[in-house]
Amino acid sequence: MKNLFKDWPTDRLTRHVNQMGSQLDDWLHLTMDRTVRLAVTGLNQSGKTVFTTTLIHHLLHALEGSNLPGLKVADENRLLGTRIMLQPDLDIPAFPYERHIRTLLSNKPAWPVPTEALSEIRLAIRFRPAGVLSSRLATSSTLYLDIIDYPGEWLLDLPMLKHSFESWSEQTLKLCEEEPRLSLSARWRAQLAELNPATPANEEEIRRISESYTDFLMACKNPKVGLSFLQPGRFTIPGDLKGAPLLTFCPLPKAGASGIPSGSLHEAMARRFDSYQKLVAEGFLKRHFSRFDRQIVLLDLLGALNRGPNAFADMHTSLEAILENFRHGPSSLLTRLFSPRIDRLLFAATKADYVAANQHHNLERLLRRLVARSANDASFLGVEIQSQALSSMRCTRTVVREHNGRRLSFVQGTPKGRDRETLLFPGEIPEILPEPEEWSAQRFHFMEFEPRRPPDAPGPTAPHIRMDQALEFLLGDKLR
Amino acid sequence: MKNLFKDWPTDRLTRHVNQMGSQLDDWLHLTMDRTVRLAVTGLNQSGKTVFTTTLIHHLLHALEGSNLPGLKVADENRLLGTRIMLQPDLDIPAFPYERHIRTLLSNKPAWPVPTEALSEIRLAIRFRPAGVLSSRLATSSTLYLDIIDYPGEWLLDLPMLKHSFESWSEQTLKLCEEEPRLSLSARWRAQLAELNPATPANEEEIRRISESYTDFLMACKNPKVGLSFLQPGRFTIPGDLKGAPLLTFCPLPKAGASGIPSGSLHEAMARRFDSYQKLVAEGFLKRHFSRFDRQIVLLDLLGALNRGPNAFADMHTSLEAILENFRHGPSSLLTRLFSPRIDRLLFAATKADYVAANQHHNLERLLRRLVARSANDASFLGVEIQSQALSSMRCTRTVVREHNGRRLSFVQGTPKGRDRETLLFPGEIPEILPEPEEWSAQRFHFMEFEPRRPPDAPGPTAPHIRMDQALEFLLGDKLR
Repeated sequence: MKNLFKDWPTDRLTRHVNQMGSQLDDWLHLTMDRTVRLAVTGLNQSGKTVFTTTLIHHLLHALEGSNLPGLKVADENRLLGTRIMLQPDLDIPAFPYERHIRTLLSNKPAWPVPTEALSEIRLAIRFRPAGVLSSRLATSSTLYLDIIDYPGEWLLDLPMLKHSFESWSEQTLKLCEEEPRLSLSARWRAQLAELNPATPANEEEIRRISESYTDFLMACKNPKVGLSFLQPGRFTIPGDLKGAPLLTFCPLPKAGASGIPSGSLHEAMARRFDSYQKLVAEGFLKRHFSRFDRQIVLLDLLGALNRGPNAFADMHTSLEAILENFRHGPSSLLTRLFSPRIDRLLFAATKADYVAANQHHNLERLLRRLVARSANDASFLGVEIQSQALSSMRCTRTVVREHNGRRLSFVQGTPKGRDRETLLFPGEIPEILPEPEEWSAQRFHFMEFEPRRPPDAPGPTAPHIRMDQALEFLLGDKLR
Repeated sequence: MKNLFKDWPTDRLTRHVNQMGSQLDDWLHLTMDRTVRLAVTGLNQSGKTVFTTTLIHHLLHALEGSNLPGLKVADENRLLGTRIMLQPDLDIPAFPYERHIRTLLSNKPAWPVPTEALSEIRLAIRFRPAGVLSSRLATSSTLYLDIIDYPGEWLLDLPMLKHSFESWSEQTLKLCEEEPRLSLSARWRAQLAELNPATPANEEEIRRISESYTDFLMACKNPKVGLSFLQPGRFTIPGDLKGAPLLTFCPLPKAGASGIPSGSLHEAMARRFDSYQKLVAEGFLKRHFSRFDRQIVLLDLLGALNRGPNAFADMHTSLEAILENFRHGPSSLLTRLFSPRIDRLLFAATKADYVAANQHHNLERLLRRLVARSANDASFLGVEIQSQALSSMRCTRTVVREHNGRRLSFVQGTPKGRDRETLLFPGEIPEILPEPEEWSAQRFHFMEFEPRRPPDAPGPTAPHIRMDQALEFLLGDKLR
């Protein structure tokens, strides 16, 4: 249709369209349709599955009074409807939206079991364009929104691409000089000390020491420890590579003066590191990452505060490594390999409803401080970066009470594992990064809650906090 | 090394080699080393994992007195040793040999849990060549044996490649006109009858009817029913495609006179069938099947006899479909797409130890009859096909007893689920295909046994029946 009409004067085209039926109308929309590939990922059980599920839920039910004032296309009554469509990649698991929303909104709501693989879903969002000319040309447009949900662990594979096996080994071994890695890696390092990497490669030995290293990574990932800067990412979430030799290597100490003998264990591990970079990190980059338009990274900042200064510092390291993937400029390996087309990147601190409303601002400020140093770098030219707090599904309400003559903000909700509502004082969130000496043993202890709808929640859809603002940042410009 | 020596007269080369140390000796072997990719697959819980595990076990322990008289390289004392090496495909799960052999040979032996994916292992078999000249040239050679273990279900995807969606639908619906498919497919066919495939494609409807079709296939696969001709293969063993839209289609009745409307459910399903052929069946063919040198297909013929005439006939259909994959000639789609290089194909009826020794011959004759019609076809020129009975791990012994004045052959072993040895009369195996009327309700009832070593088993390794003959057919010519 594009070619047929391209030389017509606009007014003639408009007149022509007005005379014709809905079929041509439909054809014309096609020429104005757009696709956005939105990647959703997260660190440390950040609520990725709940975010994706409720995002879809809000868009599907936006016309039934979903509470999305911050999403302009909804606020301006230009949203016409949303449908789930066939996803573009037929060989990728479909995001199981129906199953998750049933779990979340059932009579006995529960948090969905997180999936540990990449999945995809396509929505068609039909809307009336905001501009005058386009509203005369076409009464509606469609935005195809592909949401790709993938483990945040895999994002940490990308900064591995700039490393050689030697430099990556050095970095990883250096991290192990400090707690909690120092203790958690003790068994692996003891085995490493007994190993002579210059001896001929032996598959059984390679597998044993790699398993030991993987055990160390899993111990770091354990929610009680909660570290997130764990490489290689596939060692903790192997997906379809479970049991493959690609996942059998580990960092080794620098080779001695005699170098790396041919056929040695050291050489075999270095080769496997190279294959991992090539097949896994580059594979993910080529097939998926380079096709994303927008990215949201979810973070459980409250959980990281609970887990103390080490876990918190580690999240900071992870954030900086992730931001590296978006760094532009001639020096970036990623840019040389591919040109990622992501132009908007949102960091979101989830579970904002676990603290009182007056703390949301501090939560956002804290997140901004974490991201600030890297994000303000001039080399990010071209990628718009934003940070905000949100709650995909609000399960509490804020209650202000007088307590010993002071006005305090409490949250009321059903704490995790219980079945009755309770009033809790979650405490305050620091707006700047706490200094090491400021972390007393029990300084932070934020409770988690069951997905029970609070009595003050408005509207027929799931209540939320600032989901509309996240949607507006991620999609708003495509829905004009 | 090849180029360096290629113009030397043989005697000078021989002299030279004799003067030099083992390093050159090693180099020379390299030029004589060979690789064989052996594919192991099976239908209907045929004992694929046990076969692969014990095959490796026998080769690893051949020098400790493994009982392999039929394997010439062992019988002629030319076998020098076998080692597990790094497999060539780093991104494919490693066959977990150690785990399985520990389970099989522990104090409380158990059958290993079957894996439902492709896996790989590489062995290096060092041997002395049999010929005079080569034995002077090099004291040893190495055969690299890559064993690839994959679900037999996937093999049944290959004959789908010759079909259009229409012809495949017709064939599959025709199969559903007879029991047991008629009853098992009732729910799916009822949903199909309510469907109008000419209406616009609706993702939810497509998924619902595909799930219903998948349920039907799973019901056919249930060990009590035991059908094996189930397409598409990935519907019952999805592997990493679990949840992917590629697995959401099903056969549809022939379109009416008005044809297949654009955008209809019929069109969407036909497209998905095409994508399945392209991505799954062709993908498997390209990456794996076309690289196999030798193939063994394991069959649980005793189980098929137990399950009655329908399951038995269905196994026959599957065998013929599998043989189609090896059919040469210009008319073959497979040959046109790729030239599979498989030159030897072994059909093996497993679990031969579940019947008395005097029945093994009948078991082989029955298997040959099943395979005969297709295998004798002249178009198989170039693929050597053999059929035999075997037991990867013999768990019984044959005991001949006088019973009412007749000499009868019993088997003694520990029946499945029990913990004591019992003497059983398993009955006889027909040497020709039984006619439909010959299947009385309880004609066949072969028991399964626990993996307990029988007291008469010789040698330090696991006892077996005719594993050596299988190995000689599959590898013997490469170990000369």
